[in-house]
Amino acid sequence: MPDIRLEITDEIATITLHRPDKLNAFTTAMENELIEAFDRTDADDAVRAVVLTGSGRAFCAGADLSAGADTFVAPDDWRDGGGRVVLRMFESRKPIIAAINGPAVGVGITMTLAADFRLAAENARIGFVFNRRGIVPESGSSWFLPRLVPLQTALDWVYSGRLVEAAEAHEAGLLYRLYPVDRLLDEAYALARSLTEHSAPVSVALSRQMLLRGLGVEHPMIAHRVETRGILARGASADAREGVSAFLEKRPARFPDRPSTDIPDIFGADMPIPPFHP
Amino acid sequence: MPDIRLEITDEIATITLHRPDKLNAFTTAMENELIEAFDRTDADDAVRAVVLTGSGRAFCAGADLSAGADTFVAPDDWRDGGGRVVLRMFESRKPIIAAINGPAVGVGITMTLAADFRLAAENARIGFVFNRRGIVPESGSSWFLPRLVPLQTALDWVYSGRLVEAAEAHEAGLLYRLYPVDRLLDEAYALARSLTEHSAPVSVALSRQMLLRGLGVEHPMIAHRVETRGILARGASADAREGVSAFLEKRPARFPDRPSTDIPDIFGADMPIPPFHP
Amino acid sequence: MPDIRLEITDEIATITLHRPDKLNAFTTAMENELIEAFDRTDADDAVRAVVLTGSGRAFCAGADLSAGADTFVAPDDWRDGGGRVVLRMFESRKPIIAAINGPAVGVGITMTLAADFRLAAENARIGFVFNRRGIVPESGSSWFLPRLVPLQTALDWVYSGRLVEAAEAHEAGLLYRLYPVDRLLDEAYALARSLTEHSAPVSVALSRQMLLRGLGVEHPMIAHRVETRGILARGASADAREGVSAFLEKRPARFPDRPSTDIPDIFGADMPIPPFHP
Repeated sequence: MPDIRLEITDEIATITLHRPDKLNAFTTAMENELIEAFDRTDADDAVRAVVLTGSGRAFCAGADLSAGADTFVAPDDWRDGGGRVVLRMFESRKPIIAAINGPAVGVGITMTLAADFRLAAENARIGFVFNRRGIVPESGSSWFLPRLVPLQTALDWVYSGRLVEAAEAHEAGLLYRLYPVDRLLDEAYALARSLTEHSAPVSVALSRQMLLRGLGVEHPMIAHRVETRGILARGASADAREGVSAFLEKRPARFPDRPSTDIPDIFGADMPIPPFHP
Repeated sequence: MPDIRLEITDEIATITLHRPDKLNAFTTAMENELIEAFDRTDADDAVRAVVLTGSGRAFCAGADLSAGADTFVAPDDWRDGGGRVVLRMFESRKPIIAAINGPAVGVGITMTLAADFRLAAENARIGFVFNRRGIVPESGSSWFLPRLVPLQTALDWVYSGRLVEAAEAHEAGLLYRLYPVDRLLDEAYALARSLTEHSAPVSVALSRQMLLRGLGVEHPMIAHRVETRGILARGASADAREGVSAFLEKRPARFPDRPSTDIPDIFGADMPIPPFHP
Repeated sequence: MPDIRLEITDEIATITLHRPDKLNAFTTAMENELIEAFDRTDADDAVRAVVLTGSGRAFCAGADLSAGADTFVAPDDWRDGGGRVVLRMFESRKPIIAAINGPAVGVGITMTLAADFRLAAENARIGFVFNRRGIVPESGSSWFLPRLVPLQTALDWVYSGRLVEAAEAHEAGLLYRLYPVDRLLDEAYALARSLTEHSAPVSVALSRQMLLRGLGVEHPMIAHRVETRGILARGASADAREGVSAFLEKRPARFPDRPSTDIPDIFGADMPIPPFHP
């Protein structure tokens, strides 16, 4: 995979955008490699969480503009590339932590909106610059951004296309935590461990889908149906027997179920994934 | 009702989870008693608001685990019990104030998400511990939680299953106010009075449904249809005549309409309640 | 237009509620004039943003109560007037900045919820007073309010109907910025310029619809479909060629496309506008 790196250490996968001489500008190759990388982290039960970061001094400078004025011209059957990546991230079985190590502009910031967490270097800057280029927001950001920050803030950033300092983005709630750049990755790994070390991997995978999809559905009855199926399926699982027993015996739990094989379908016809069509 | 207490004083109903020797652990009996209690507070026009609290030093320690490893095994036609309570609370005609007097864990915290307000003792701790037990979030929390706190915070709490101090939960917006535990109930009653003392009971009941359901619907046109019916029905009511007259005459209003008999159907086919089905 | 004023200066339209001797109380004439004013600002490509403010010491004292107890009695085919205005604002092609120069009560505050931004004078006060008058919230506020402020805050304000100081409303996120009243309009104009000066007008118009509607739709796939059409249409536009070229040449962009003629339909059957029916 020429445009990204994928490494797995201590149950955490690190995906690194790797075009450092181009400030990791986003390409179609990178788009497809990212989707493949999330396929791999989902299939590998040794991976408990994913950290997404950038190589060199930038996180991602946005779309590669080497095609100049024609950069955003596309054939009729094209699909927004950042959107394809973000929808794949939305379906991830593992929590995703974006470690934004430097400038994140255009698709460089919108691709992180489907991560569970955005940690950033204190000197990072972000920009929803689409309106300054004559295009529009993408990568699912018209769904994610107004759910992640106050609406007035989302509109300010998107209309103006201005660069936003990390401190302002943290204050607005887009960035979960800020760190000095040389501590950022270690803090991302520490967060990953805190999320997963005491939890059943299948429960984490299901919780992720339940909360992300639950954010969009109309009525809590829909959530109740999904949750009922979830407790029915998981309550009878080896994980639940172990989880309750370990708690009662005041010892750490060792959960046997595996995401690759043991995730029950608790959604049925609820919280459906709409098809893509043009 | 063996597992809860229901008292009505000064137009405020107090529902107390009452298994103090078991830290008010949640049972099927408690589930059914809570639903019956909200049926009673809805039917009784002398009740303007409901306070939900716990007996002894805990609010609710979560599901009763006395069945051990089999605790969460259930028959196929079962429905999540916390979800049944929370959906009943969602339909309440009266504002509900949870006064979280101590630890609130598992269903102990998720059952409060359908309350209008969560006040808590400064030393309370909460925990969305489901993933540590090998199960999944319930009680409608996959709908409520990501709407009540920032998404990153909701995912952190649910993935990790860690205990969260009251101060962190207040900072995140889950807890509306914190008080010393010996002032908590008095403050809950004071809030209840401030919400209801100058307002028409039928207007409060309708506003509750409008805002809670409105939070889930797709387009403001749906809200506009409901609101139009609301102003049409209530604008011609005795309450509106009294409310406007009292304001113009600079005197307190005395509203004649009663929730038990005078709530108009303003929802029609809009903002429907989906049926439960497995 | 007897009840409002409309002025256009330096690419910014100012709509002023103009019944200063009545604290700009809302009338049916004002309702229709506001809708006509937004039709004009949308049709006029010389307008980049709209500022909505009040004449004299109030922003808007709410519904005109001169009909006394019969104020809210309406014929069966009536539609909520504030809702008609707010739905028109929701469709605006230009960002709308409410400059709340004084008391904003009832429809006086709910009509601003469909503005993109609410700036206010430090001494402004707001009130969702509907329940004190025996009616219910309107102007789409059951959709907007719980999306703009924390749910507990929205319920507190609406149930109680109490007057809320600007500082509390700012803290809760309803008001974006507070200013001394004598600086308020200048700050509104400065914000308007910062939003529009570097951005393509058609991109701003599309972004507005994408984020406002995106806030209501169930799944990010819906946003992805709309965004894909958006990048397809806008990526091939003269604006995108100019935007990318100007960026690469490090010069200000001069965008040729015009909202009155060049807004592509990127929504198709997605994010539909439901019809009104009684």
